[in-house]
Amino acid sequence: MRRRRVTLLAGGVGGAKMAEGFAALADVELTVIGNVADDEAFHGLWVSPDIDTVTYTLAGLINRDQGWGVADEAGRALEVLKTLGEDTWMFLGDRDFGLHIHRTARRARGERPSVIARDVARAFGVEAEIVLPTDDRVQTKVETDAGWIGFQDYFVRQQCAPEVKALRYDGIEAARPTPEALAALAGADLIVIAPSNPLVSIRPILGIPGIAEAVKQAAAPVVAVSPLIAGRVVKGPADRMMAALGHRVDAVGIAEIYAGLAGSLVIDEADAALAGGVRAAGPEPVIRPTLMTDLAGKRRLAGEILALCPEPVA
Amino acid sequence: MRRRRVTLLAGGVGGAKMAEGFAALADVELTVIGNVADDEAFHGLWVSPDIDTVTYTLAGLINRDQGWGVADEAGRALEVLKTLGEDTWMFLGDRDFGLHIHRTARRARGERPSVIARDVARAFGVEAEIVLPTDDRVQTKVETDAGWIGFQDYFVRQQCAPEVKALRYDGIEAARPTPEALAALAGADLIVIAPSNPLVSIRPILGIPGIAEAVKQAAAPVVAVSPLIAGRVVKGPADRMMAALGHRVDAVGIAEIYAGLAGSLVIDEADAALAGGVRAAGPEPVIRPTLMTDLAGKRRLAGEILALCPEPVA
Repeated sequence: MRRRRVTLLAGGVGGAKMAEGFAALADVELTVIGNVADDEAFHGLWVSPDIDTVTYTLAGLINRDQGWGVADEAGRALEVLKTLGEDTWMFLGDRDFGLHIHRTARRARGERPSVIARDVARAFGVEAEIVLPTDDRVQTKVETDAGWIGFQDYFVRQQCAPEVKALRYDGIEAARPTPEALAALAGADLIVIAPSNPLVSIRPILGIPGIAEAVKQAAAPVVAVSPLIAGRVVKGPADRMMAALGHRVDAVGIAEIYAGLAGSLVIDEADAALAGGVRAAGPEPVIRPTLMTDLAGKRRLAGEILALCPEPVA
Repeated sequence: MRRRRVTLLAGGVGGAKMAEGFAALADVELTVIGNVADDEAFHGLWVSPDIDTVTYTLAGLINRDQGWGVADEAGRALEVLKTLGEDTWMFLGDRDFGLHIHRTARRARGERPSVIARDVARAFGVEAEIVLPTDDRVQTKVETDAGWIGFQDYFVRQQCAPEVKALRYDGIEAARPTPEALAALAGADLIVIAPSNPLVSIRPILGIPGIAEAVKQAAAPVVAVSPLIAGRVVKGPADRMMAALGHRVDAVGIAEIYAGLAGSLVIDEADAALAGGVRAAGPEPVIRPTLMTDLAGKRRLAGEILALCPEPVA
């Protein structure tokens, strides 16, 4: 029996955990469609935090303690940049700089960002395919009391402290989906929406013209995983952001966001009482323990999601 | 009595040593006009090896053991670049990358390279002025049996092994001197040509239209220091290069190169017998110990050169 093709839509840390779970399953051929909308230029170099978190995680290079960045990292280059008067609130380690230098040089030569991301993943030994949803520039901006700011400014510099009044995704209307992303959705046996932030990780993927349509038209079942457990996220600002933007901050709120797209929504056992509300919103609720604290937990959750998918015919 | 303004034309390691000697003299206001013709782009970043060697040396950041590069350096970024398939024969450390990233970002914003170099030196705490001879691109190319190659390819990758058949300085005819370099020559009390490689460090400075003329028209005495001791250089390929290109490989050969420009040539005691030949070529020979093995030696030589310069009037 051939391996099952799982296409995962994933943001940063939460998406990387889910990706690791599927990558650990021997009978899965994994493609990750990552988020590029938190990309930003620092010191003239193009930085792709979400994509790199997935790549580093699947390559086994991730700093396990913090969940992002590279192990055996140091900050000599950034220290010099600070001495030279540059703003260095965005931590970029020396190994990480190597990647950003490489990516920036290749982008400057006109190479497709998605080809660069694929080559980088392969060079680091990642077996899964890492696919960009678009080669065009899409950037999440956050409206705060102080006006519109860049996502990394909100997320890293201000540590998600400001109240979010609105979000926009600059460039998304004009962005074109990559053929690789469309193919990964059309050819999937199972499409999974990772327990990432639905508003700043998944929406800027789905909002690229053609991507949501490709998900809807795909033959494969679409399973979303709620990032909320008992109304709270494990990590990040998704819960506060959902509240601030008028969403219900629970599994039903997630179901409402993915209604019409996901046939099923995996919700945590702690949220079993919300199953009826989820079903009423659209997706069929699937109750499982969703906390991924170690590799065994990631693999278990991935396996349980895979079990929702019919065996492939050929 | 005001401090004496010394303007030093200097290449990399030898020039940096001489610069350190003058910088150690309390009564000297030092300006270094460095060499940009060994600049080259690596991994999309603009690298200025000679300028940086002078800057790092005067900032006290130099790796004393090797005479170039920064102390407490590591190679994490380069290791990643190698993993990603890039050519990494040019060693670039993590701290060094910080500087190259900064410089490249500012150049991309259209800032003058000489302003960047000045700011970098100040940020690193260098008291001397570091001045570029031009803001335009000048690049030394080396003709070998295998054809024309870049200077760093010859110097670093091939370790100066190929026989040099010819040199050229791409862009030099169209290059314009910086106003800072012209002012430093016009306002000097003493102009010194460091014991750098005359063909690949000093010539690409003097060959920039207007620079040699400014040296000749300057009121200050011009003193060159021979990089050869008993027909050999302390470091680098200058002796072999001079021989290959048809120069006499001794103090007289140096005197011939700087004839018409330098009023005096400091030659080593080991070359005292060549004094008559030096004088016949043009410059007045000045016999001194020229080997600079430690800071005391550098300061002593600088002091002896300064003693050749009349006291300033004002």
